[in-house]
Amino acid sequence: MDEFRLPGAATPIRALLFDTFGTVVDWRSGVAREAAPFLARHGLAVEPHTFADAWRARYQPAMAAVRDGRRPFILLDALHRENLEETLRAYGADPASVPDAELDALNHAWHRLDPWPDSVPGLTRLRTRFIIAPLSNGNIALLLNMAKRAGLPWDAILGAEVSRAYKPQPEAYRRTAASLGLAPAACMLVAAHNDDLRAARRAGLATAFVPRPHEHGPAQTRDLAAEDDWEIVAPDFLALADHFGV
Amino acid sequence: MDEFRLPGAATPIRALLFDTFGTVVDWRSGVAREAAPFLARHGLAVEPHTFADAWRARYQPAMAAVRDGRRPFILLDALHRENLEETLRAYGADPASVPDAELDALNHAWHRLDPWPDSVPGLTRLRTRFIIAPLSNGNIALLLNMAKRAGLPWDAILGAEVSRAYKPQPEAYRRTAASLGLAPAACMLVAAHNDDLRAARRAGLATAFVPRPHEHGPAQTRDLAAEDDWEIVAPDFLALADHFGV
Repeated sequence: MDEFRLPGAATPIRALLFDTFGTVVDWRSGVAREAAPFLARHGLAVEPHTFADAWRARYQPAMAAVRDGRRPFILLDALHRENLEETLRAYGADPASVPDAELDALNHAWHRLDPWPDSVPGLTRLRTRFIIAPLSNGNIALLLNMAKRAGLPWDAILGAEVSRAYKPQPEAYRRTAASLGLAPAACMLVAAHNDDLRAARRAGLATAFVPRPHEHGPAQTRDLAAEDDWEIVAPDFLALADHFGV
Repeated sequence: MDEFRLPGAATPIRALLFDTFGTVVDWRSGVAREAAPFLARHGLAVEPHTFADAWRARYQPAMAAVRDGRRPFILLDALHRENLEETLRAYGADPASVPDAELDALNHAWHRLDPWPDSVPGLTRLRTRFIIAPLSNGNIALLLNMAKRAGLPWDAILGAEVSRAYKPQPEAYRRTAASLGLAPAACMLVAAHNDDLRAARRAGLATAFVPRPHEHGPAQTRDLAAEDDWEIVAPDFLALADHFGV
């Protein structure tokens, strides 16, 4: 691998670390696809994408309790499962009336998300020059099953349980770099979310913004453009690979 | 992936986990190759393979202190570095007289080991049916750099710092399975070492023995044959892939 150095940077970039939900995979369509037969079976009158949005809306508040120290570290699979039960209750269903195995199967929708069309070909090219790995709040089993199904060619899978911290906590970024044997400045976070990039920059990582204007559906209003002077801005992973000459 | 079930087993095998040093890569030749110029430069009159053996001989005793709780968990990279300094002293050299960067570079010989000839083609075939991952005492950065250089197509890299236990402690096997979201019985350890397989079996994993009769050089006497009724015995990874029909 040839060295890649950002203009003026002392440390070459060795690893590209990727936010996963929204940046690499389309969680909204995937969860809606998996929820649709469940909702029909149980007679819940909610549009599957709306259900996916409602389930996802509980993601940040649930992690906040871990970040604040109000509860000990717990895997995202377990948080997703709690959030699923609360979402069902919000739509008037009683999760206790659904067999555990059926709830688990729906909860694993997060393991079965499709990549954006440019994700696999882009990552495959980027991997020829850099270490590539997810830097996600997902746990190892989730990220592994997702990668195996979608063909994501990660060099390593570091779940949140390796850093035992949830983004945007600085430890999530710094401990991931350390696990790879790298300084934060030798790592670049690739993300579709400006707030994730802000936290990565504060932790010492380089940053690349790749917008995903349909992550939240056709009426998305947030994260449509770079909100800061990120080191790289690219429309998709293929353009990112072009940028690095791979 | 089709299910693979061992005769009489209730649980299908989902993941093949591989001992790495000796089973997947040839540590002795690799360390000797990397040590040779160092030894020549410093006028140390020791044959490089003998030096590799002496360095490796300190591996188990160094980990024993962690296993016994006499010292807290520490990465294998750090243990290798301590062992290197002690090995140099045993040959009459003063490691304090060698620049740190040169010692670090030699210590990273363990990141630059070549696979056995059947390892990459065998793993590539096995990966089409199973999750494949190392189950090694190596740390993530070591295993990642090794995989990137050698082209080992792991689905996930779980270093010892994920389980914070060193084989043959049962936690090393059980926590690795748990990190993958699997029961121990859904995992099979592939190893060239009977003692590793014994510990894996005690922890509930299935076992496959692949002998590596030249791991310790031409005069090897240990681990030439299966010493127990391991579920599978195969002469190399290609034969293992044949066994699974991939």
